[in-house]
Amino acid sequence: MIITTLMIPICLYIIYLLFIITSSSPSSYSIYHSLFTSTSLITNSNSTISHHLYTLTRRPHVAGTQANADAASYVFSTFTSYSLPSRITSYHVSLTYPISRSLTLTHPQSDPPTSITFDLNQKIYSGDPYANEVLPTFHAYAKSGTAVGKVVYVNYGRVEDYDTLKQMGVNVSGTVVLVRYGEIFRGDIVRNAHLAGAVGVVVYTDKKDYGGCGSKNKGYPDDRWMPSSGVQVGTLYSGAGDPTTPGWASISSSNADCERLSDDEVEQSGDVPLIPSLPISWADGDFILRSIGGQVANADWQGCPDSSVYRVGPGPGFLNLTYTGSQVINAIQNVIAVIEGAIEPDRFVILGNHRDAWTFGAVDPNSGTAALLEVARRFGKLKRKGWRPRRTIILCNWDAEEYGLIGSTEWVEENREMLASRAVAYLNVDCGVSGPGFHASATPQLDELLKQATQQVRDPDNISQTIYESWITSSESPLIGRLGGGGSDYAPFVQHIGIPSVDILFGGGYPVYHSMYDDFVWMKKFGDPMFHRHVAAASIWGLVALQLADKEFLPFNYLSYANELQTSTKVLHDVVLDKGIDFTPIYKSIRNLEKAANKIANQIKALEETRHFILLRNKDSFKVRELNDRLMMAERAFTDRNGLLGRPWYKHLVYAPSSHDDYGSKSFPGIDDAIEVAKNLNTKEAWHVVQHEVWRTSRAITHASLVLNGDLT
Amino acid sequence: MIITTLMIPICLYIIYLLFIITSSSPSSYSIYHSLFTSTSLITNSNSTISHHLYTLTRRPHVAGTQANADAASYVFSTFTSYSLPSRITSYHVSLTYPISRSLTLTHPQSDPPTSITFDLNQKIYSGDPYANEVLPTFHAYAKSGTAVGKVVYVNYGRVEDYDTLKQMGVNVSGTVVLVRYGEIFRGDIVRNAHLAGAVGVVVYTDKKDYGGCGSKNKGYPDDRWMPSSGVQVGTLYSGAGDPTTPGWASISSSNADCERLSDDEVEQSGDVPLIPSLPISWADGDFILRSIGGQVANADWQGCPDSSVYRVGPGPGFLNLTYTGSQVINAIQNVIAVIEGAIEPDRFVILGNHRDAWTFGAVDPNSGTAALLEVARRFGKLKRKGWRPRRTIILCNWDAEEYGLIGSTEWVEENREMLASRAVAYLNVDCGVSGPGFHASATPQLDELLKQATQQVRDPDNISQTIYESWITSSESPLIGRLGGGGSDYAPFVQHIGIPSVDILFGGGYPVYHSMYDDFVWMKKFGDPMFHRHVAAASIWGLVALQLADKEFLPFNYLSYANELQTSTKVLHDVVLDKGIDFTPIYKSIRNLEKAANKIANQIKALEETRHFILLRNKDSFKVRELNDRLMMAERAFTDRNGLLGRPWYKHLVYAPSSHDDYGSKSFPGIDDAIEVAKNLNTKEAWHVVQHEVWRTSRAITHASLVLNGDLT
Repeated sequence: MIITTLMIPICLYIIYLLFIITSSSPSSYSIYHSLFTSTSLITNSNSTISHHLYTLTRRPHVAGTQANADAASYVFSTFTSYSLPSRITSYHVSLTYPISRSLTLTHPQSDPPTSITFDLNQKIYSGDPYANEVLPTFHAYAKSGTAVGKVVYVNYGRVEDYDTLKQMGVNVSGTVVLVRYGEIFRGDIVRNAHLAGAVGVVVYTDKKDYGGCGSKNKGYPDDRWMPSSGVQVGTLYSGAGDPTTPGWASISSSNADCERLSDDEVEQSGDVPLIPSLPISWADGDFILRSIGGQVANADWQGCPDSSVYRVGPGPGFLNLTYTGSQVINAIQNVIAVIEGAIEPDRFVILGNHRDAWTFGAVDPNSGTAALLEVARRFGKLKRKGWRPRRTIILCNWDAEEYGLIGSTEWVEENREMLASRAVAYLNVDCGVSGPGFHASATPQLDELLKQATQQVRDPDNISQTIYESWITSSESPLIGRLGGGGSDYAPFVQHIGIPSVDILFGGGYPVYHSMYDDFVWMKKFGDPMFHRHVAAASIWGLVALQLADKEFLPFNYLSYANELQTSTKVLHDVVLDKGIDFTPIYKSIRNLEKAANKIANQIKALEETRHFILLRNKDSFKVRELNDRLMMAERAFTDRNGLLGRPWYKHLVYAPSSHDDYGSKSFPGIDDAIEVAKNLNTKEAWHVVQHEVWRTSRAITHASLVLNGDLT
Repeated sequence: MIITTLMIPICLYIIYLLFIITSSSPSSYSIYHSLFTSTSLITNSNSTISHHLYTLTRRPHVAGTQANADAASYVFSTFTSYSLPSRITSYHVSLTYPISRSLTLTHPQSDPPTSITFDLNQKIYSGDPYANEVLPTFHAYAKSGTAVGKVVYVNYGRVEDYDTLKQMGVNVSGTVVLVRYGEIFRGDIVRNAHLAGAVGVVVYTDKKDYGGCGSKNKGYPDDRWMPSSGVQVGTLYSGAGDPTTPGWASISSSNADCERLSDDEVEQSGDVPLIPSLPISWADGDFILRSIGGQVANADWQGCPDSSVYRVGPGPGFLNLTYTGSQVINAIQNVIAVIEGAIEPDRFVILGNHRDAWTFGAVDPNSGTAALLEVARRFGKLKRKGWRPRRTIILCNWDAEEYGLIGSTEWVEENREMLASRAVAYLNVDCGVSGPGFHASATPQLDELLKQATQQVRDPDNISQTIYESWITSSESPLIGRLGGGGSDYAPFVQHIGIPSVDILFGGGYPVYHSMYDDFVWMKKFGDPMFHRHVAAASIWGLVALQLADKEFLPFNYLSYANELQTSTKVLHDVVLDKGIDFTPIYKSIRNLEKAANKIANQIKALEETRHFILLRNKDSFKVRELNDRLMMAERAFTDRNGLLGRPWYKHLVYAPSSHDDYGSKSFPGIDDAIEVAKNLNTKEAWHVVQHEVWRTSRAITHASLVLNGDLT
């Protein structure tokens, strides 16, 4: 009798316990994951996405403007309408806008000397109601001032291009250089020019790179190419985050509440330009090119076959360039939506995309924003059907990425300590879609997961196969890029804190990039007419997030990382084969990482196999957490608290931007920087620094292997 | 029928579940905690401790010698005999030993000129069988070389003492300075002398400070005082860890497996002396003092009332000092015992004490080692009675602390990433007992726990009251010290990583410190004749550890921290009241920390109150972990990855050693350093740096409050 009475509450508790456990069991999660890409959920996705993109891109919305604050409200209310608790987090950051610009070309050798002042306007095509709101073309953070001098043509403005000029005997000192966009970050174009002695820079868009050679290409709106009046604008700032608050958050516009560097201190940082510059169109660039005499440029410096012959100068063409900008502290808005984890709320899977655009931003970035809202919509649907992610999912819509990853970086800097101990992964989409073809970059432990996700989504451009099948048979090499570059919001996550990250897109580079022609009509006509690529982007993005959020064991594979490190080491090693640098420490540390990767994989397998009886799982919850923490924290260990020599904000010793191209991803940047210095100086001390960086990198890899391994010495 | 068949496994599972839960329930833990200090467990503790101390201190056991490796084996086998799984972890570190020393005093004005060469030996008292194994008196890492010059007496060798000499018109340049031990770290004595222009340093032990003034004090073995031939030896190195591997672990003696700085690079670090020095006895010091003429020193520079009058010189006494040391890479041994946590094995409560001694080390450090072995013995007993700590407890017996916290620092550096994410607290005992009276230092969130633990142990010197009662009525001010100093192995834990820590001892400073008289006989006669103080030290140490290891919620109180920070800020603020430095950012950040401390305390209370039904607890395990992680990681947030300006190894912005006394604990060291520079230079730029350090410190406190608060922005 006593037993029976006791049995009632006990049995009720068992039922409760079973409910708790099964409702968050792996099998129930997989049902929701299938649902995420099911026909029932995505039938009208393309029209919803199209509507979001249309709304977001009706007006230009540069960071710090009312239009972009309005766009933030739209994202916020959309998140909220999908039942995702959301908030807007503001920062107060240093932004620049153009006040006045002028560019005059004088041809002193024509008789009489001719002089032309360019109007610097992009042509408005008919039916574009908001085009007059587009900012005058400019470079963000450009140095205000006037530059006057003979023109020299410097191809893409890389270090090697200046070397070529030197070999040709062309002196750049005191000139205004004409450079074409296309190979390196524009901030480095201006920096290299300054280092070479130029007093001003004009950067144009060559038809060969963005216009589609051949007379049949007329340019947008007739085709997808950049029209001849189109201008690529953009930032020159090569750091990450508000230049006036390096390493800390710009939490207030009041100097009493937030420390800020002075203008002089910002200039001393080396991340902002020290000579004036202007971006110009192909039409204006071509006009200037025709004023340049001197030696004929090398074949790979030339333009389209039907262009005139490019010469390097100096002169006789003579440029007079003036730029005045205003520097202000403006409010920016990140929009943050949170789906709290049911089991591990303090583990974060973060999806991020920026919202601010230089003009309309149909590709860059709002194709990504529309995909983010689509992911949010589907997550909302799953929630209504009972899904509660195991871990917390955070959707972030960043501001002021275009100026220098500012919205994301300020947020990362403010929440640094918490993100460092809680963030499982960061999944970035900047331009979501500019055309067909899937591209991805990732920290290597996520390679496998990316491949799996792409196997579950049909290729929108070839419905007979999966994205994975199209992707691996494409010419993409390497198949998965790395995240050392400074080109988008993954940078603070990877390079400042060491959070495993992913960046995906459909299409890649596109001709109207950062011009006023990157608008909804372009997307509708050329980028993704049916918006099926957007749907696919959202599917992959969401599937990767769901796996990371719901899988009991984090789907991280560190064997990929070890392989990748091995390859990168060999590349660097080959560069200095004759210099007596010993790479053994790195090779050894990689072998330890490999061992640790195998060990943890086996431990997870063993734990999974011993737990067929579902009720045993709860008991192991801390064991599961321990294994997951090792997987999560191993990436952190690649960071060194002192950071890279001379650029201490960059803490990651495996991935960072190239010193000469902020968009370029470098492996082992500390060693790479040191090798470059040593090659120039060729002193014993300089090569000693290379060896030290080899040691330092090997120790970071060893730290990662110890964390993955989980045993104290 | 079906129901009944199902019921059997289900009921078995329930019984299993209840067993699991109750066996690790808070109430069962408290039974073990009571047991830890129960009569049954500690009846013979004092004789066991005495035996351990006797065995450990029979022979001198300097780091890097066979004797200390033998001592490591003893600790290892003792841990093992108590059923604690143990291991020995070796490092290969740069140590120094004396090869030759000489010191000659010439008195040129006596007629004929007299010259005496000191024998530099401590007197061996009868019945000390191993005294001949004691190393010749020396300073570790002393600069080899010869120094010749007139003597100047400089009191304690502090910066202010040199200022005093300057005011008296005494030029120190080119002299050999005579300094007495007692106020600052000996490394800083030599550094200050070098900075003042001295060419050599002789450091003696004044009777006033260590010998007990008055003729009735004859010195050990007749009484507890330092005999007149006694010499305090010790290190001059002011960094932490092997000087040749700053920031990384000395894992191998092979240069192919471990990067090492060259001797030149070590000298450039500023942490080793650049002029020769020798420590000498009171007898020799007094002799030299009598050779010094010139002005009479200030009253507070004088010795015992019965001493001769001290004059400052220079000369006429003239010293010729030669020191030659050998610098070698030797193996050292840390002994590590682990009691794995039953529920949270990946959370560590670490107890540490060093084993290496300059001579016999009865007080320093083996009174602590004996207490550690006693803690281990009782933990072993609890284990046999069924206790399994919730979290992992790690007992560490460090090597080479005396040379510069080397064993602990190398271990911390090797395991840095794992300790940073897993270590709950570090509990240090260096000298465990040198006499009566309890003393403690701690990071402030542990103040409350320390007080509670001392309320549970009787004062061995006044059995009618608890240690707490004796302690709070003592003259100790402040009651609890802070851990910014570099004096013991807590430094790498607190100052490099930010791990909440404690340091306790009975007695404090003692006369035979670092001399060959710090032996078992001294302890037995004067330090702790009955070894009851050792028993009490072990009790408090173990109780604090048990609370940290077993309490479901970590017993951290951050309100104490906020109060402490408030006090420290006011002190600094008052120093620069007229300098226009704005301390508002720090005051604001402290208020946020206070709010967060209240919030988490309330959250814990609320969670505890909702869980009267024991079976609900498991469901909340991740919630409990989340709260604990906030408590654990808040301290980490006081560290800044860039570290202090000019001393980047020191990452903690609240506690670090004073720049002028490695033993001194500074609050807000970054601000303090900057103020000192600004006071000297008194330029706008220098005061600007002070304001920057105020901002930086305020941001660290803000990070801590965000972590404690647990919400992302």
